[in-house]
Amino acid sequence: MSHRERIAACQKRLASEGADAAVLFPSVDMGYLSGFTDEPMERHLLLFVTPDEPPVFVAPAMYESQILGESVVDDVRVWDDGGDPLELVEEVASECGLHGGRLLVDDRMWARFSQDLRSVLPDASFGLASDVLAPLRIRKDEGELDALRAAGEVADRAVMAVRRLGSEVVGFTEAELAQEIEAQLAEFGGTGVSFEVIVGSGPNGAQPHHRHGQREIRPGDPVVLDFGTRVDGYPSDQTRTVVFAGDPPAGFDEVHDVVREAHDAAVDAVEPGVAAEAIDAAAREVIEEAGYGEQFVHRTGHGVGLEVHEPPYIVEGNETALEPGMVFSVEPGVYVEGEFGVRIEDLVAVTENGHERLNDSSRDWKPL
Amino acid sequence: MSHRERIAACQKRLASEGADAAVLFPSVDMGYLSGFTDEPMERHLLLFVTPDEPPVFVAPAMYESQILGESVVDDVRVWDDGGDPLELVEEVASECGLHGGRLLVDDRMWARFSQDLRSVLPDASFGLASDVLAPLRIRKDEGELDALRAAGEVADRAVMAVRRLGSEVVGFTEAELAQEIEAQLAEFGGTGVSFEVIVGSGPNGAQPHHRHGQREIRPGDPVVLDFGTRVDGYPSDQTRTVVFAGDPPAGFDEVHDVVREAHDAAVDAVEPGVAAEAIDAAAREVIEEAGYGEQFVHRTGHGVGLEVHEPPYIVEGNETALEPGMVFSVEPGVYVEGEFGVRIEDLVAVTENGHERLNDSSRDWKPL
Repeated sequence: MSHRERIAACQKRLASEGADAAVLFPSVDMGYLSGFTDEPMERHLLLFVTPDEPPVFVAPAMYESQILGESVVDDVRVWDDGGDPLELVEEVASECGLHGGRLLVDDRMWARFSQDLRSVLPDASFGLASDVLAPLRIRKDEGELDALRAAGEVADRAVMAVRRLGSEVVGFTEAELAQEIEAQLAEFGGTGVSFEVIVGSGPNGAQPHHRHGQREIRPGDPVVLDFGTRVDGYPSDQTRTVVFAGDPPAGFDEVHDVVREAHDAAVDAVEPGVAAEAIDAAAREVIEEAGYGEQFVHRTGHGVGLEVHEPPYIVEGNETALEPGMVFSVEPGVYVEGEFGVRIEDLVAVTENGHERLNDSSRDWKPL
Repeated sequence: MSHRERIAACQKRLASEGADAAVLFPSVDMGYLSGFTDEPMERHLLLFVTPDEPPVFVAPAMYESQILGESVVDDVRVWDDGGDPLELVEEVASECGLHGGRLLVDDRMWARFSQDLRSVLPDASFGLASDVLAPLRIRKDEGELDALRAAGEVADRAVMAVRRLGSEVVGFTEAELAQEIEAQLAEFGGTGVSFEVIVGSGPNGAQPHHRHGQREIRPGDPVVLDFGTRVDGYPSDQTRTVVFAGDPPAGFDEVHDVVREAHDAAVDAVEPGVAAEAIDAAAREVIEEAGYGEQFVHRTGHGVGLEVHEPPYIVEGNETALEPGMVFSVEPGVYVEGEFGVRIEDLVAVTENGHERLNDSSRDWKPL
């Protein structure tokens, strides 16, 4: 879909939800709809989208030409540093008829700005823009899928290139290995990293959100490698748990088998109509039966699109039925405190008849 | 100040402001107070600070050990993926006596979470945590100043190293030059970049917030170089407008002189007791008198600390009196549409008697 088509689809949903406007803040949603976004900033930069009128930006003057150049929105009202942005916000809100209306604000709008909107519009009621935008963003079109596939391929090639270093990696700190991974991602055509690279070696692997540190990798260390890059704005996110050289600690092999079986069971369960929580249950069942249920401390996965974490979340309680075009991670893990962790993750797209994996590098742990 | 001292100072201010709690979200404020923070995330991770009781984290279970390890807070209540975080939020809010109370929420809390707090506490009133935290963070202590000085020195050394490349830079794309700058920052001991490097060559320099692109640098191009790195968590932010080789376009030399004079006039005006807006006026006066007032389209500067943009803002209307320990940028600019831009920026610390520049690399534009 073009940005104009996305705006039109958003307007239609605003009307059907009975909302008077979506008010976006520099975020992925702003970029998805308009073509322009930036980092969240302390200056008022808002996009008003109403059901019937063309969208309007309220922006610092210095952003005017950039917004006109990058977005499909033609109406940009600007305020100068030293001026009062709230006067302009009030003016545009009045034009849009928002006094006493229902506003859906960007889910990531900073409290500072949502409080300002409340002070300018004391009689309005407030909801979240995801009510109208999440249903649009959750199904990826072919262009988005192509970018996700390409990003997945870069991650696959990078992980194999790093694994081929074999015993050379012994003695690297986790931070050095992370740097090597970043270099390989760039080498294969990725843009940056989609999140800070995780290199969890030995006992550090037992902390699911350990990033990387100064610990040196030793022979026999299981190492959790969790990373991604971006292609055309879309990310990859894939995890392999591997040994670069030597023999892993007792019990590792069995845990790895269990996690891999859980991962495969969850992926195999993916098809349209199945509830998101059923994918979580498929992984959890395998791990619980093997006696490691207590050590699988997180949900099985998360949607991936312009954001690395977005709906649908693959978690108990999420009854969302899977639809073609949804893309999410499947990443069960078992964490053995003080010893090691194992996590295996691929991105999976729901297809008309089943699913497509977006990663295909070896899921085996053995030194190459 | 240690994190415990910061928490005590925050509690004292909560009491004096008549607020019942500050509720923080993963942000700089959370890190400043507790020692732990992370990227903003879609999972509920909140820190409740009340005037009289020890602070309490509400966090996803998988963050428990990391929070206990990194923060000075001992009370971490966790919820599991698949559980309902709002039950726990409600429980902690009740313990803290927040029903009908006054809550100051993190200025950067996502609307998603502030809406959740409003739904759990329908009778509470809401304000912003900056009411109590900004006055603490705005004055830097000696440890913070040392880090800011060190980060400034790295940026100074990097810009001179890059300028010494001279005519070698002709033919580089802006993106390649940005990459070279990042490499130099790392070489001199900086950690990453404090914001995306700005390389605005020729006409691109006339867009104050142009980042960098594929335009190739030509002989005679004025190039705006605006970048920083971090040391011990604190950033630098400095701008030089330079020519790498050849003769600049007609009029550039004069504009550069005006901006440099404005920059110096503003820095010279910095001392305790002066209003922030007076620093802006000092720069603006020089530029207006020279006839370029319309082309100085932004404020003169912004505070710098854990965040690259934070109070005090050096802008018309900000009557905040400068105090020793405040640190901010002084960065007037003149933008000649379609031709070039000029901006010169140093960070300046307010001292007991005047000011200290945190940058001292050459402000001249001529090829070295």
